[in-house]
Amino acid sequence: MQRDILKNIREHRPVVHCITNYVTANDVANVLLACGASAVMASAPCEVAEITARAQALVLNLGTMTETTPLAMERAGKEANDKGIPVVLDPVGLGGSAFRKETAARLLREVRFTLIRGNASELKALCGQEVGGIGLDAMPYDMLAEEEKKVDFCKQLSRKTGAIIVMTGATDLVSDGKRMYRIANGCAQMSRLTGSGCMLDGLLGAFLTQAEDKTEGAVLAVAAMGLCGQMAAEKMEETAGGMGSFHMYLLDAVTKMDDKRLKEGMRLALE
Amino acid sequence: MQRDILKNIREHRPVVHCITNYVTANDVANVLLACGASAVMASAPCEVAEITARAQALVLNLGTMTETTPLAMERAGKEANDKGIPVVLDPVGLGGSAFRKETAARLLREVRFTLIRGNASELKALCGQEVGGIGLDAMPYDMLAEEEKKVDFCKQLSRKTGAIIVMTGATDLVSDGKRMYRIANGCAQMSRLTGSGCMLDGLLGAFLTQAEDKTEGAVLAVAAMGLCGQMAAEKMEETAGGMGSFHMYLLDAVTKMDDKRLKEGMRLALE
Amino acid sequence: MQRDILKNIREHRPVVHCITNYVTANDVANVLLACGASAVMASAPCEVAEITARAQALVLNLGTMTETTPLAMERAGKEANDKGIPVVLDPVGLGGSAFRKETAARLLREVRFTLIRGNASELKALCGQEVGGIGLDAMPYDMLAEEEKKVDFCKQLSRKTGAIIVMTGATDLVSDGKRMYRIANGCAQMSRLTGSGCMLDGLLGAFLTQAEDKTEGAVLAVAAMGLCGQMAAEKMEETAGGMGSFHMYLLDAVTKMDDKRLKEGMRLALE
Repeated sequence: MQRDILKNIREHRPVVHCITNYVTANDVANVLLACGASAVMASAPCEVAEITARAQALVLNLGTMTETTPLAMERAGKEANDKGIPVVLDPVGLGGSAFRKETAARLLREVRFTLIRGNASELKALCGQEVGGIGLDAMPYDMLAEEEKKVDFCKQLSRKTGAIIVMTGATDLVSDGKRMYRIANGCAQMSRLTGSGCMLDGLLGAFLTQAEDKTEGAVLAVAAMGLCGQMAAEKMEETAGGMGSFHMYLLDAVTKMDDKRLKEGMRLALE
Repeated sequence: MQRDILKNIREHRPVVHCITNYVTANDVANVLLACGASAVMASAPCEVAEITARAQALVLNLGTMTETTPLAMERAGKEANDKGIPVVLDPVGLGGSAFRKETAARLLREVRFTLIRGNASELKALCGQEVGGIGLDAMPYDMLAEEEKKVDFCKQLSRKTGAIIVMTGATDLVSDGKRMYRIANGCAQMSRLTGSGCMLDGLLGAFLTQAEDKTEGAVLAVAAMGLCGQMAAEKMEETAGGMGSFHMYLLDAVTKMDDKRLKEGMRLALE
Repeated sequence: MQRDILKNIREHRPVVHCITNYVTANDVANVLLACGASAVMASAPCEVAEITARAQALVLNLGTMTETTPLAMERAGKEANDKGIPVVLDPVGLGGSAFRKETAARLLREVRFTLIRGNASELKALCGQEVGGIGLDAMPYDMLAEEEKKVDFCKQLSRKTGAIIVMTGATDLVSDGKRMYRIANGCAQMSRLTGSGCMLDGLLGAFLTQAEDKTEGAVLAVAAMGLCGQMAAEKMEETAGGMGSFHMYLLDAVTKMDDKRLKEGMRLALE
């Protein structure tokens, strides 16, 4: 695993263009700044291609779309493909509406994604399978009962889409169709904070810009986010705080995260 | 009063669909998660009905509307009525523009609301009375000089609309046309934090899903929010903090709020 | 310099209408409330003029515009001009797209601005000069190598636009075409927090409503924001926090800022 990815982000300050939901945009921008990158948010179809053209990564998040968002995402995604910069897709609450499913289908047709991140139900919905869960937040139950099924599913989805798949859950999975990593960082509080997934999307965008190996870059971003969650949970317990404190400490942890801490704290298994 | 409402919210994790303003959406989602519920934010007219169909409550907040928001709210509201789930209306800054007044009038015609929450000036505007105040935040003065007038007004508005009326202010009033509760929880800082009303809207949505008696459910939500404000204000003073600290401690307090604390801390008078 | 500007804001509670980006709207509203003012956010073209008509200042921020935002800004700006209330323009990421440049050009044609605030690259873009930087956040390098050039540039831009120019950077410059102030408050963390510029826009709006001399009012707002940043940075270091802590302490500092602290902490040079 690369040992200088955060150092490189802080040196090169990559700009990540996020077309993301208004619920968590502030946290996404602040996480990007805290890890050393920079954020630009722009979603009007008439300007997104230009904005993407000057960015080093693009993150598309399907939460709180308006009717013009799919066009904006398609234009930005094509520009990113033309320019050869990484593109991350987060199919937020995909099972919740036809609009989200159609948008995801359209984007998968028109744009080549470097990485797709979702929870089990969102990623299953991507395959046209029926899903009961909706919402910005992870469902409390697991759609895929057996761990083994998830592993196979991620590998297949990666082969089908050509994208690295990140399935977040109690254990996070990262697969590029051949390799499969399990990351056991993270904490229970993250599923109770809105935007912890969206913040990870941002980090993934930043990490991909500096990754020697993109799959490993994704693994490092997932581990970094999880480790920040653990640091925040510890601090929250120390101070007898609640989710407001956790939220603040999470941003603190991203500020303090570096390659040494990441290497030491990462809990990883390669299959 | 029901003694297990928060326990039930945490057990059943109701999904609350919020069509709300972008200023405070993050806080609303985090308050819902902190109280044990879950939030989904979606406001495109093409998807709102489907999203509402899978939710357990709907919250409509008129702050920062776009031209398509009224249609989205109408569709979501009708779906909620069809499905029989509670619908909350917050006529934010209603006196401020014809657009807001027309939208409220349209929604009151097309949708049956379970509950309407606003400050005195917003609720008066709902009745077509002239109001000077605008803005997301409570006005520093009180439109209705005499406490008694407010009580009558809330009862009448409840009878007229068929909705439980929650009038927030120094003392909060809850009426269903027959019963009238005064809730004396809360603190001065809440009127200086943007979104404290919007967060209460979210809580009201969540509490209504688990309420044996909806009026009492509303009373409990109002008391819970006010009590969280008191806990946050105390903590802010202890730590010599300002409004940033208050904001964080408020979310902490929602995390820690439970039925026992609520019962003990609630300051209530039934007329 | 006026010695009671914050006292007056807290007494008169001016309402500042902000047409601003969704990334930082929550912070802008909370900063306005913390300094004693009040915020109203509304951006639908059909209602903005009415909202502005009841406000005491208008702030236009070009981040995250939709296709209808320019029309909304033009209408609100004209209303503000008719009513004679101060109008602040923040040309966020102006170099990033033709849409932003065209909108700024349109607004400069149709609206008389009291004040324009940006970093060096945004303000240069306003003049049609080529700029490489994009994004909500200040670029790490400086577009204008020599301090002297900046000073001349701000004076000229002020004369050309008729607006007070606030150029934020390591040292902040305020010019009305004749006078030129350098303000050396602030801290490194502010450029790593999204929205520190947008929050200053809000403060500028509030301060202008109570300023005996508008240029001095702008200087006081810039110094107040910078001083709050310094207080937050100190507190962050004391508590060994990161950017989450800084964010919270910044809002705390705005709550605590008063005319006495401002006078004592302001680091100012008039050329």
